Amino acid sequence: MSQKVHSMKKFINDPEKVVDEMLEGLLLAHPDQLKSVRADNRALVRADGPVKGKVAIATGGGSGHLPLFLGYVGKGMLNGVAVGDIFASPSSQQMLDVTRAIHGGEGVLYIYGNYGGDVMNFDMAAELADIEGIRVETVVATDDVASMPKGEEDKRRGVAGMFYLYKLAAAKAETGASLEEVKRIAEKANKNVRTMGVALSPCILPAVGRPTFEIGEGEMEIGMGIHGEPGIQRGQIESADDVAKSLISSILRDLPIQRGSDVSILINGLGATPLEELYIIYRAVHKLLEEKGINVYKRYIGEFATSMEMAGLSVSVLKLDDELKELLDAPFVTPFQVQV
Amino acid sequence: MSQKVHSMKKFINDPEKVVDEMLEGLLLAHPDQLKSVRADNRALVRADGPVKGKVAIATGGGSGHLPLFLGYVGKGMLNGVAVGDIFASPSSQQMLDVTRAIHGGEGVLYIYGNYGGDVMNFDMAAELADIEGIRVETVVATDDVASMPKGEEDKRRGVAGMFYLYKLAAAKAETGASLEEVKRIAEKANKNVRTMGVALSPCILPAVGRPTFEIGEGEMEIGMGIHGEPGIQRGQIESADDVAKSLISSILRDLPIQRGSDVSILINGLGATPLEELYIIYRAVHKLLEEKGINVYKRYIGEFATSMEMAGLSVSVLKLDDELKELLDAPFVTPFQVQV
Repeated sequence: MSQKVHSMKKFINDPEKVVDEMLEGLLLAHPDQLKSVRADNRALVRADGPVKGKVAIATGGGSGHLPLFLGYVGKGMLNGVAVGDIFASPSSQQMLDVTRAIHGGEGVLYIYGNYGGDVMNFDMAAELADIEGIRVETVVATDDVASMPKGEEDKRRGVAGMFYLYKLAAAKAETGASLEEVKRIAEKANKNVRTMGVALSPCILPAVGRPTFEIGEGEMEIGMGIHGEPGIQRGQIESADDVAKSLISSILRDLPIQRGSDVSILINGLGATPLEELYIIYRAVHKLLEEKGINVYKRYIGEFATSMEMAGLSVSVLKLDDELKELLDAPFVTPFQVQV
Repeated sequence: MSQKVHSMKKFINDPEKVVDEMLEGLLLAHPDQLKSVRADNRALVRADGPVKGKVAIATGGGSGHLPLFLGYVGKGMLNGVAVGDIFASPSSQQMLDVTRAIHGGEGVLYIYGNYGGDVMNFDMAAELADIEGIRVETVVATDDVASMPKGEEDKRRGVAGMFYLYKLAAAKAETGASLEEVKRIAEKANKNVRTMGVALSPCILPAVGRPTFEIGEGEMEIGMGIHGEPGIQRGQIESADDVAKSLISSILRDLPIQRGSDVSILINGLGATPLEELYIIYRAVHKLLEEKGINVYKRYIGEFATSMEMAGLSVSVLKLDDELKELLDAPFVTPFQVQV
């Protein structure tokens, strides 16, 4: 057993084994819900899969973002996930193994965030699956408004708003819809969702042992990515109400929403930010939208896509219509989240 | 609107209004699940209450511990909660208002943590309720092993293990059991549960603006309370496996558990500690218990009783028998957690 002494403020053993040991803990904790289909545990699928006769949905990405990505595998949600090292893409072979294990005969949809390594590896996995006669379609999440200007939406990063692509596409797949229809819903969700984040402190990569960047004592950074990618504005920490106003303004400038519309709101904690603060932000967001005549049909408040112990949060807005509302209301069960 | 500039790494407005604004956000977010029965929102009850013909359960305590305390109000869980300021007891009048609002004719059980202010205020509320003809019984949670030595169990603090008192007593109340029977289950849960915590960093009281205590760069403190009460051992940060071993050893020395027994495990994050690390700790705990022939029947891993942005975690062990297993498996729904 590795018992290296380390001085990081983390509960880990060997920094190089964080992901392996986390996955081992996860599989010991949830054997009724998740199973591994590789000796390295980097391909996890629903314990009750594959589901015959339905489109299967897979995701994947680097570790360090729990419950993203693997936390969204479960009934009424995704069928499988490829798990990379901290902030690193899984391999195409790991993704291919997921694809094989979840295929129920009706094709597989890949949904993941728009990061170079992931795109390359998942595209290769899709090609390899195709050779084996498994139809694969792909929808890449690009909800992070701050990551590229308007007009270049398809180059944006995927962040917490990806939750909605998962949720809605999975609910559609559950109805027995075709691969084309499930893909259409994931694309529609991506088109209708925007996210803006703000960070107060960095996170520490276990294998590095120190913060990946610095934010000054009284400072915050708006638009920072979930791996510490630079944001669009650094300055003094503002009040919660002003932060909410800034994030919502950026989102609504990018995705105009008419008075009388219904939306879903996701207030996502990046790691260290307490739930109390997420509710103070929700209060401000709710009121801002109310002033604009926009109705919050359903909200999610908690940790959905983290960056280990980073302090910060993001706000996602999803524009709803009747079709999306019905899909959003469908139940799901994962080891991390349950909606009844 | 208050727009004070502050330099704390927190998303708040006026530090003095943190609890009020958090509660306002909560009520805006979950009107279908929670309602306020006081103008100051410091008494919250189930939106569908009171439940006639069943024993009602109330809790309460200081704020800053979400989802504790108010997060456990919901179907299959508690009926109401009195909400104090950050780390401060609610008043007896707030508790009395909860009691009146949830009473369904079969009496009310108070379950809360063993802290001086809470005991005083809740005892007074019980007396006032009695005058109004509402029978009240009380069970005080005392699961924190580190807070007092063996032999003085009844003077220990209540921490994350309180979750089990809530869960089990509420499931019993749901069956239509008498106040005496529901109380018996809460007492049995308290007798059967032990918690040990460890902290890596302090939290910051909004109204104070700086950490309430300091822990050195490479240090941890075992046994620290959820308000920063001193622990029993400070030293260099150890590996996750060694931390798990230390916590489990302390618990099993205090509550011997025989080979072949079933337990439930709660791995609770105190705020800033990532889920990844909680799973690494779960892995170690699971293996340690397995070596001793103890079976983990059910586990909960996540944030159940926090201390704002404190980095740290606690491990609770609940000794199970058939009666408790059945109650533990019953479903519940709160805005923060759902078990199906």
